Amino acid sequence: MHSLQFTAESSANGVLARDFTVGGVPGVLWSPASGADRAPLVLLAHGGGNHKKHPAMTGRARLLVTGCGFHAAVIDAPGHGDRPRSAHDEAEIAELFRARAAGEPEGPVVVRYNAHLAELAVPEYRATLDALQDLPEIGAAGPVGFWGLNMGTAIGVPFVADEPRITAAVFGQHWPDVLAAQAQRITVPIEFDLQWDDEHISREEGLALFDAFASQEKSLHVNAGRHKELPRFEADSAARFFTRHLTAAADRPA
Amino acid sequence: MHSLQFTAESSANGVLARDFTVGGVPGVLWSPASGADRAPLVLLAHGGGNHKKHPAMTGRARLLVTGCGFHAAVIDAPGHGDRPRSAHDEAEIAELFRARAAGEPEGPVVVRYNAHLAELAVPEYRATLDALQDLPEIGAAGPVGFWGLNMGTAIGVPFVADEPRITAAVFGQHWPDVLAAQAQRITVPIEFDLQWDDEHISREEGLALFDAFASQEKSLHVNAGRHKELPRFEADSAARFFTRHLTAAADRPA
Repeated sequence: MHSLQFTAESSANGVLARDFTVGGVPGVLWSPASGADRAPLVLLAHGGGNHKKHPAMTGRARLLVTGCGFHAAVIDAPGHGDRPRSAHDEAEIAELFRARAAGEPEGPVVVRYNAHLAELAVPEYRATLDALQDLPEIGAAGPVGFWGLNMGTAIGVPFVADEPRITAAVFGQHWPDVLAAQAQRITVPIEFDLQWDDEHISREEGLALFDAFASQEKSLHVNAGRHKELPRFEADSAARFFTRHLTAAADRPA
Repeated sequence: MHSLQFTAESSANGVLARDFTVGGVPGVLWSPASGADRAPLVLLAHGGGNHKKHPAMTGRARLLVTGCGFHAAVIDAPGHGDRPRSAHDEAEIAELFRARAAGEPEGPVVVRYNAHLAELAVPEYRATLDALQDLPEIGAAGPVGFWGLNMGTAIGVPFVADEPRITAAVFGQHWPDVLAAQAQRITVPIEFDLQWDDEHISREEGLALFDAFASQEKSLHVNAGRHKELPRFEADSAARFFTRHLTAAADRPA
């Protein structure tokens, strides 16, 4: 069991940002600067080729912290951000670039590489959650959400499938090949994003992954546009989804 | 050109509700009780078998009036609410009940009957919009939205396809047969609801209608559940959609 070490701290616009490591894996914990004892926590996971402080991560963290009063945390995926790349990482990335340059579909490479990264990342997410729940301002009793798209979904689906502490999750934009069987074991409420004109993931593939979740409460948000054109209002929607599911007072007035 | 006659008025919880008729067609206009000069207007259309004061209509009106500061208006569809049924209405309703009792799909009857009702209702909606825009508190300059599901979509798609005053619309839960060709002429932003486990409308049919819209900006919201189990948070989402598209100040902070 690894404990969490804080390595840096800054505060701006009402958000306290603390860099940390757990077992050598670097991450960031964002919290309300005004304090948020035992507030809900949402674990984030970044997309492929990105890192823990990518604007998509800091933007989602800001929505969760200042909009919802939650804690948000993310770690660098293996081979990403401040973590070293292995020879295997380098070979898979080279293969991805080769496929792209050749005009070949990148799905087969991404699916295979993401499945490999997920095997490494799932125990890291579990150890990070353990360590975060040891912090007095988070604790082990509160609800925990998970929010990851693209590679974040490839990591999140196997993580959430075996992690009963996660009670709501936002996923999306991934192929079903490896994940559909894992998704069939997920029963917590989910919100799922896909792009109607995704140049990498076909409609049939995107819908098949959404369909696979066993959750009684699941919502699919499809928007016109290509893979990287996911509208920013879907981040607002995800934050509202977590507010509905992670806070007791979120019941909608009749 | 018919003018609008107010026939009754009440006020509760910050909402002024005024019954009206336009050319003999009865409707309701909901407005902020505190006044809302030149505020945006959203036209509502009710579902089959329902009427202008069904709780789905009054609930949506309350969201639009008290949540957004908008006007909202609805009229009874032909053969619905306070309007008389024709012999044709009676025959089609009898056929629908017969099909249901026999366990036959109701789609063919509903598609045919709704197309008939839409032919009658579209000019009524146009006349109602003309008359509402003659009111000083609405005016002809402001943005106008349309929000109708089920039969409200069967009426709304042909109405919006030929009505340039509508600049954003929420549709959903209908078969594509008659509507897809009309939807191909709609280019304004839309939000579209469908139910993943709809016992009447197949996934393929629901997705085909969403796909048909020519709108560059279109969002599909799919939820697990049967036809009548559309979650209430989709009404909140629709109200936010109209806030984004009908108010100038709705631009999301970066």
